[in-house]
Amino acid sequence: MVAPRAPGGKEGGRASALQRGLAILLTLGSEEALASDGLGVVRIAELVGREKSQVSRALQTLAEAGFTERDAATRCYRLGWRLFALGARAGDALLLHAAEPVLEDLAACTGETAHLSVLDDIEVLTLLSEVPTAAVQAREWRGRRAPAWCTSSGRALLFDHSLEELERRFAGRDLSGGGPNAARTLRQLHDRVVGDCARGVAVSDEEFEVGLVAVAAPVRNARGAIVAAVNVSAPKFRLSAGLEDAGRHVVAAAASLSAELGHRRTLEAAAR
Amino acid sequence: MVAPRAPGGKEGGRASALQRGLAILLTLGSEEALASDGLGVVRIAELVGREKSQVSRALQTLAEAGFTERDAATRCYRLGWRLFALGARAGDALLLHAAEPVLEDLAACTGETAHLSVLDDIEVLTLLSEVPTAAVQAREWRGRRAPAWCTSSGRALLFDHSLEELERRFAGRDLSGGGPNAARTLRQLHDRVVGDCARGVAVSDEEFEVGLVAVAAPVRNARGAIVAAVNVSAPKFRLSAGLEDAGRHVVAAAASLSAELGHRRTLEAAAR
Repeated sequence: MVAPRAPGGKEGGRASALQRGLAILLTLGSEEALASDGLGVVRIAELVGREKSQVSRALQTLAEAGFTERDAATRCYRLGWRLFALGARAGDALLLHAAEPVLEDLAACTGETAHLSVLDDIEVLTLLSEVPTAAVQAREWRGRRAPAWCTSSGRALLFDHSLEELERRFAGRDLSGGGPNAARTLRQLHDRVVGDCARGVAVSDEEFEVGLVAVAAPVRNARGAIVAAVNVSAPKFRLSAGLEDAGRHVVAAAASLSAELGHRRTLEAAAR
Repeated sequence: MVAPRAPGGKEGGRASALQRGLAILLTLGSEEALASDGLGVVRIAELVGREKSQVSRALQTLAEAGFTERDAATRCYRLGWRLFALGARAGDALLLHAAEPVLEDLAACTGETAHLSVLDDIEVLTLLSEVPTAAVQAREWRGRRAPAWCTSSGRALLFDHSLEELERRFAGRDLSGGGPNAARTLRQLHDRVVGDCARGVAVSDEEFEVGLVAVAAPVRNARGAIVAAVNVSAPKFRLSAGLEDAGRHVVAAAASLSAELGHRRTLEAAAR
């Protein structure tokens, strides 16, 4: 799991007030902040690498705008309701609208958790998750990140990348980490992408983590561009026998979602 | 419907770079931006009342941080996926987690749309909506705002406000507008709140809009503080006969949600 990158400072580390504010918001959305239900000014200043006084001023502006709120008891800052409401209005409404029932069906027929994700720089950002039974809540998956080069959804999102495009996207980035079967070089990654494309589905077998398998397929818009990926992941002992079946369901789900976005070809290909 | 207030400039209108950035984000979450699937720089500059060059710089910073994205075809800016992901991590996770099934049940047993909302200054901000059948999508309600003084959910959120507290909250604010039966003064509003409290449910009969009725009840946390409201609203011709029933369901839903947040008393009161 890669930490969310804060917007970098320009001109040798001098970040603007806006960049500092955005970095604070991202920090308040981090696993650490969620786990402890908010962060104090001192800890936030540490995490964003800024003076406490600068952070205090930014937090005041953010709180006035309703983007953050302060717990009366703990004095810790959290992301506020106005940010929640704004977030619900972000992203591609058509995609999110269409994806919910498709993911529900996918989770029901595979019996495993289904995800919708997008490419964010060199990471995969989970937008929606559906668990097979309504008993378990999957909200904690939303907003999670995973590396794109060693996950099935990441590879599905890179289906259209040539080796040169992969080199541009991953230039200077570290490909270490991941599970035992992760690609170690961009050439290896590209070879796998080519193989995935031929099958129409990306399969990850312990590439992200020991004991984890996953299948993913890309979602395309009316212009044919890949805008998201649909995937199912599960412990290997449970899904490995049913992986091919799951793959077919994932491809069908991605095709039906693509069709709803106005894409024509995928559905025909899936029907062949 | 009141437009989302942009964070105000301080020191006689001089807004900081962070305030401008937040104002741009709120503008990109406005009804106008959603309806036209993004806004161009010129229109954003108009709406936030800033120079185009300032707005361009801020948009670049926001885009670099993934908070906004630019449509390749229309050149318009939209809220980005990173903001979507961040928004999903904002607010009270326990409340949202607990509210979804409660709202679903409420929508199913009343046959009308059920909402969860919080108080945001003098407005009611809708966090979640559930429609009675899965066929209709209610996403467009999320993030919507309505005045607190002439809606049932607004009054439920004001249950604990004394007349003095109402005066502090609404100081200098305009109470005109609303439906034919809206409260016109803070004393009227307070009288209604006192009556609502005695019944345990806030009823709005054409206070917000002609032809619209609604019932709401407050959700309390473990410390007894009102943190949200649950409500059901519908056209008068459809709900008016069943309003008392709907009120009982709303009170029960709010009580069960309060109980999940650790509140003890409401459930006992509802059982009486």
